[in-house]
Formats: sequence, C-alpha cells, structure tokens
Amino acid sequence: VLLYNSAVSGNCYKVRQLLTHLGIPYEIHELSVIDRSDRADVIGGLNPALRVPTLVFDDGRSLAESGAILWHFADGTDYLPSDAFERAQVLQWMFFEQYDIEPNLAVVRFWAIAGIDPAPADAASRRAAGERALSAIEGHLAAGRAFLVAERYTIADIALYAYTHVAEEGGFSLAPYPLVRAWHDRVAVQPGHILITE
Amino acid sequence: VLLYNSAVSGNCYKVRQLLTHLGIPYEIHELSVIDRSDRADVIGGLNPALRVPTLVFDDGRSLAESGAILWHFADGTDYLPSDAFERAQVLQWMFFEQYDIEPNLAVVRFWAIAGIDPAPADAASRRAAGERALSAIEGHLAAGRAFLVAERYTIADIALYAYTHVAEEGGFSLAPYPLVRAWHDRVAVQPGHILITE
Repeated sequence: VLLYNSAVSGNCYKVRQLLTHLGIPYEIHELSVIDRSDRADVIGGLNPALRVPTLVFDDGRSLAESGAILWHFADGTDYLPSDAFERAQVLQWMFFEQYDIEPNLAVVRFWAIAGIDPAPADAASRRAAGERALSAIEGHLAAGRAFLVAERYTIADIALYAYTHVAEEGGFSLAPYPLVRAWHDRVAVQPGHILITE
Repeated sequence: VLLYNSAVSGNCYKVRQLLTHLGIPYEIHELSVIDRSDRADVIGGLNPALRVPTLVFDDGRSLAESGAILWHFADGTDYLPSDAFERAQVLQWMFFEQYDIEPNLAVVRFWAIAGIDPAPADAASRRAAGERALSAIEGHLAAGRAFLVAERYTIADIALYAYTHVAEEGGFSLAPYPLVRAWHDRVAVQPGHILITE
C-alpha cells in the first residue's frame, strides 16, 4: 500500500504502527503539514478532506481517516476484539480521541512545532480541553485497567497513545497523570512498537 | 435501552433516528447542553467524556460517542454494509463528520441557539472550516452518488445528515451546495425518517 504521510503527524504514526505490527509493507509519500498548497493536486481525488493519512491500495482504491484505516486493517487480527460490545468500546475511544484529544493536544503541539503564535483565548480553551481529556483517560485507568478496552492492547491504545505520549511537546505536563504514564510504558513495550520518529 | 439525550443535539438525533429505524424502544433522560453542572453526578460513571448521547443497556453496560453507538446497533442490519471496504468507507465519513463537521457546523449552531457571542477569530475560522467540509461533501456527491457510501442509505448518511441539514440554523447557507440539498431530500424520504425535533 501507499501511505500519504507526514512525519510529525500522530494520525499517520498510528497507521505506520499498525502496519508494522501486521507486517504489511508500505511505501511513503511525504506531504508537508506546514505548506499545504499541493494538497488538492496530490490527494484531491483520493480524500475529500485533503488530509494525511490517506492510504492507497494496490488496486487504486483509497481510504482516509486514521480511525477508519486502523479499523480496516485490524479487523480479524489480535488488535481488534471480536466481541461486539468490546468493538463498540474500541470505537468509543477512537471517536473520543478524534474529538477531544486531537483538536487539543495535537493542535497545541503543532503550534509549537510550526512556530505559530495562537490567539490567547484559543490557546487557553484548547489547553483546558486537553487537560479534561487527559483526566478522562486517567479516570478510566483508575478502575485498575491495564489497557483502554478488553484488558489487552488494541487499536484503541494505538490511537490514544499517539498524541498523548507527546503531549509535553505542546507544553502539557503529564506529571498529574501517573496512570496515563504507566499505560504509555505498557504500550511502549509491546512487540513491534515503533517510535513516532520512525 | 436508556438514552441520555439532549433535544437540540444532532449527535443524539443520529441515535434516535437509528433506534427508530430498527424499532428498538428507548427511554429518554434529558440533559441540558447549556447548564452542564450536573453532568459528573448523572453520567460520570457512564461516560468519561461527560457528553450526550450516552446509552445504557438493560444490563447496566454503557456506551458513548454517537459513532460508536450507531455502529454497534447498525452492524448486521441494512444500515451498515457487510463488505469490508464499504464498512471502512462508512467509518471514514463518520470520523470526517466528528472532526470536520461537528466542531464547525454544530458549534456555530449551538452559539446561535444558546445566544453565545463568540470571539470573531474563532467564529471566522469555524465558519471557513464548515464551508470546506460542506464543499468536500458536495464534491463527493458530484461523482453522481445518491448516498455517501455503497449507493445506499447507511449510518454514514444518518451521521452526516444530522448537522448539515440544520446548518442554516448556524447561519450557513446551503444555496451553494445543491447536491448536498438533493441528498438531504433523499435522506428525508427514507422509511422511518424522523425530524431532529422529534
């Protein structure tokens, strides 16, 4: 498969991590997340949202949105449970991630990486929402859970690890979230784990 | 099942629409989207994100995030295809909706309903992003599609109809999007269709 990728994108990292776990070879086409002027030309016919990751299969079909790509490749493997309710819980956390984590932790981190000076009110509101999202994960793990769903490592962990484990790059402190940090450690020792910089 | 609901929420409307299609009886517990001070007390143990919709099964298990709830109930029915790639495409549009439509069309509509005066820069950026999202749907339908995925009515249509068909309540005009309006008309004549006000 061909992956339209950005090296700094946590959403792309999720896809690279799962493809690596599954031993699926992929080719990288790198796109800038700073200069997006070529997006319509390059992936306009592949992804209406013009975002990475966008994945193209060998037969030419394309698929976008990290959550949809993760689901598609994980289904039928150890990375997605077969129980209907556990599958729904995996999706619950993946939708939570795209709504409550990505727009806050990822955007604030992107500002830092791109050297963007945000409006103070926007920064404050995303920072507060990011803290609420981290607290929600901390509270979920406080019930004695080792992983987010089904007490084993799934694509829910891959999806939520991506931006939470680099939250400090956006100026968040993980010190108040010891259970999140311990969960990060458990994810990082999974066989086949790769770094976001790989 | 018991549905923690808000009458103005498009996310809750999606769930009510699918449960109605499927003939699954549900009880409503209404929560305010304006005064959220009771959220932790009422749904704190059910949904870490403290948002509606939150659904509770008769055996006490709970499920949150409209996309996860739709998927769980639609799986195995006519509202979700059985083909693996079409299922991934349904998820692609549902993740697109939560990332590109909900934070823009729904938030701007909520400001209008709640009488909130937003920061001008925030309003401008959400309005521009909302227009881009509507354009992305228009472009997708321009390929001659009657529905978003698999040329039939699925939970992708239910999910994206919810906030796009009331976009004008937030001050968006649908005049530049004739294919979106024609698709709205096709959704609205589906057997069992209910209004967002029902």
